[in-house]
Amino acid sequence: MEHVTQQLNQLLTRDHAVELDRQSPLASRRELFDLPDGVVYLCGNSLGALPRSVPDRVAEVVRREWGAGLVGSWNSADWTNLSKRVARRLAPLLGVQGEDVVVGDSTSVTLFKTMVAAARLRPDRKVIVVEPTTFPTDGYVAAGVARTLGMELRWCDPADPAAAVDDDVAVLALTHVDFRTGAMFDLAAVTAAAHDAGAVVLWDLCHSTGAVPVELDAVGADFAVGCTYKYLNGGPGSPAFVWVAPRHQAQLDQPITGWWGHARPFDMVQEFEPAPGATSMQVGTPPVLALSSLEAALEAFDGVGMDELRAASLSLTDLFIALVDERLAGFEVVTPRDHARRGSQVALRHPDAYGIVQALIARGVVGDFRSPDIARFGFAPLYVTHADVHDAVEQLVAVVENEEHLDAAYSARKPVT
Amino acid sequence: MEHVTQQLNQLLTRDHAVELDRQSPLASRRELFDLPDGVVYLCGNSLGALPRSVPDRVAEVVRREWGAGLVGSWNSADWTNLSKRVARRLAPLLGVQGEDVVVGDSTSVTLFKTMVAAARLRPDRKVIVVEPTTFPTDGYVAAGVARTLGMELRWCDPADPAAAVDDDVAVLALTHVDFRTGAMFDLAAVTAAAHDAGAVVLWDLCHSTGAVPVELDAVGADFAVGCTYKYLNGGPGSPAFVWVAPRHQAQLDQPITGWWGHARPFDMVQEFEPAPGATSMQVGTPPVLALSSLEAALEAFDGVGMDELRAASLSLTDLFIALVDERLAGFEVVTPRDHARRGSQVALRHPDAYGIVQALIARGVVGDFRSPDIARFGFAPLYVTHADVHDAVEQLVAVVENEEHLDAAYSARKPVT
Repeated sequence: MEHVTQQLNQLLTRDHAVELDRQSPLASRRELFDLPDGVVYLCGNSLGALPRSVPDRVAEVVRREWGAGLVGSWNSADWTNLSKRVARRLAPLLGVQGEDVVVGDSTSVTLFKTMVAAARLRPDRKVIVVEPTTFPTDGYVAAGVARTLGMELRWCDPADPAAAVDDDVAVLALTHVDFRTGAMFDLAAVTAAAHDAGAVVLWDLCHSTGAVPVELDAVGADFAVGCTYKYLNGGPGSPAFVWVAPRHQAQLDQPITGWWGHARPFDMVQEFEPAPGATSMQVGTPPVLALSSLEAALEAFDGVGMDELRAASLSLTDLFIALVDERLAGFEVVTPRDHARRGSQVALRHPDAYGIVQALIARGVVGDFRSPDIARFGFAPLYVTHADVHDAVEQLVAVVENEEHLDAAYSARKPVT
Repeated sequence: MEHVTQQLNQLLTRDHAVELDRQSPLASRRELFDLPDGVVYLCGNSLGALPRSVPDRVAEVVRREWGAGLVGSWNSADWTNLSKRVARRLAPLLGVQGEDVVVGDSTSVTLFKTMVAAARLRPDRKVIVVEPTTFPTDGYVAAGVARTLGMELRWCDPADPAAAVDDDVAVLALTHVDFRTGAMFDLAAVTAAAHDAGAVVLWDLCHSTGAVPVELDAVGADFAVGCTYKYLNGGPGSPAFVWVAPRHQAQLDQPITGWWGHARPFDMVQEFEPAPGATSMQVGTPPVLALSSLEAALEAFDGVGMDELRAASLSLTDLFIALVDERLAGFEVVTPRDHARRGSQVALRHPDAYGIVQALIARGVVGDFRSPDIARFGFAPLYVTHADVHDAVEQLVAVVENEEHLDAAYSARKPVT
């Protein structure tokens, strides 16, 4: 028994963490990011770090393409196809073809247009099912869609969403990895169960893409929407993507029929005719600065296998959980310990979670707080190291031992996103 | 008679154009823009030129706020209120209060959510009226809204839109300045006529804001949506704004209920509760890079009176029309000569308009082509000079005299936006 404890202690040393980093096939990727000195950044599940490829690219788009090229850059710099170029870069991370992906609007807008399109595939069904612990905007948007289309919103049991899917359900809208707990649904199994009941599934991949493998084509998914400013590092407020299964594209009918979703936008004819394929999910003029930042950011994934990424992510969260178990009392690990049910973050429950997160930030360890009592730590496998994990827990121990989280400075809660 | 001709000829010399520039109260504003040497840029009604204030500001947001500040910049750099800051800068250009303006989504998405909100103010009426020569996306979006809400789309006579507004009409959606011809509606008169018939008016100000005075509060308008990448110089694909009349805000009910339109977004509660005022028009996480570019760009308007801007615009278009009349044959000036009906552009009809525009671009004069036969020239009064106008017509004369527009290189049409 003493021998086992000794072995465990060796596995939890900083030296061992550094050794794990040395052995990681992703070790060199951290150099692709411009992280401030002295910061352990465990908030890439909220806003991804800055890739070194981005600043010069954005400056070039501003000064050369916009400033010097002016309106001609729609052709000469191929802004017209920028969204499609980004889509092709995203596709391997989703297990899909680039032509089935569209990038351009905010996540909430993208959820709206996609949820309506999904509901219209089942016109005889009147219920949208949403999971109550989802990120709020998903539920808000679903309520808006239901009201607009004269449908009904039904909240399901988070433990078994498919159980709520009966003959009345048009759409099951689920977040793959929970933003608060980091718990992950079995995408394939839930999709299959909902299909058995005749519903269409809309997956929100905000907390998956870039950290957790998804194989949308392989599992026969219907629709997926995801954020690009978290694990994809596109920059604050960068636009969301939507993927539409090829088998649904002939019937695709989304409500926000803007000119970039037209079959021939530049003919400027009076009647709307949807573009073929997923392109009809496009709406307005693409946000060139944001898409350019995202395009450059995605270079950090070039040549990275999703399996490598997943292995690195699990190794980081495993180590974090082991260290928390070993070094800390009074914290509940809310995130599932089962690999199959874990995303790329770890959530700790503690009554003083807010103050703890603030005190940790003051020590250079950036996580975030989620109401009412969750301290949330994201592990972006491209730039978070095992040494970071070790150091973060050391600081967490110090915060608690010194009772820094009870400091009055942390009593006023500020918004976090 | 000879004397009059002599006087006219003097008024049309380059020296006179330079003198007009010297006398212009906006003369120094051109220095705020980074225009390439040798280019006469008459396409600011498609994509505004790069303000010198933008590149460093964008670089700062990328490197310092995102790169160094990371997720903390939502508070420390006040990204949370960035949209509101931009709204306050826009307000004087619209004759409104900043709190009644929201900025964030593409023009097409903004038209969609606003048109639905407008229609919901008249639930007993089932028709949306649109003008058939409007920019296509307005008609496409209106068709999408009508279909989604079970309403009917009705095309009106461009000569008298309000005549189409009867007791069945919920919304009249009009573009203030026509994208193709530059013709301008009387905003106050059309609004009043539609109100007399009980309808709500949604004005598309894409080709007005930043060049043509609009006094939305003063005329009792209902809703307005506009683009920020044309005369406002926000950058390619920068987000649109929406203004909601204060008297409609208590009943405001837009369909895309995202978390940034919630009364308390960061509480992350399950049920949607709209934010008070115009804020419920917000949807998703704001596009920080684009909004930062736009915020910096709007500094070019600081201290500029809308009357000054209008006077400069009319002086430029007057001179352009006079020079075209004097120097060119075979061109029809499609834009109204009446000041009260003219926006800030001049459209010339010519059967070879496409080739003419391309040949002009090759000579450094950037206008654009609109199908089927329009050569379009925009006069952004902050940076276009009377000398530019003179030089542009000289080049146009040279193109036609040398028949450069018949060059085979210009036969393949490329998209323009």
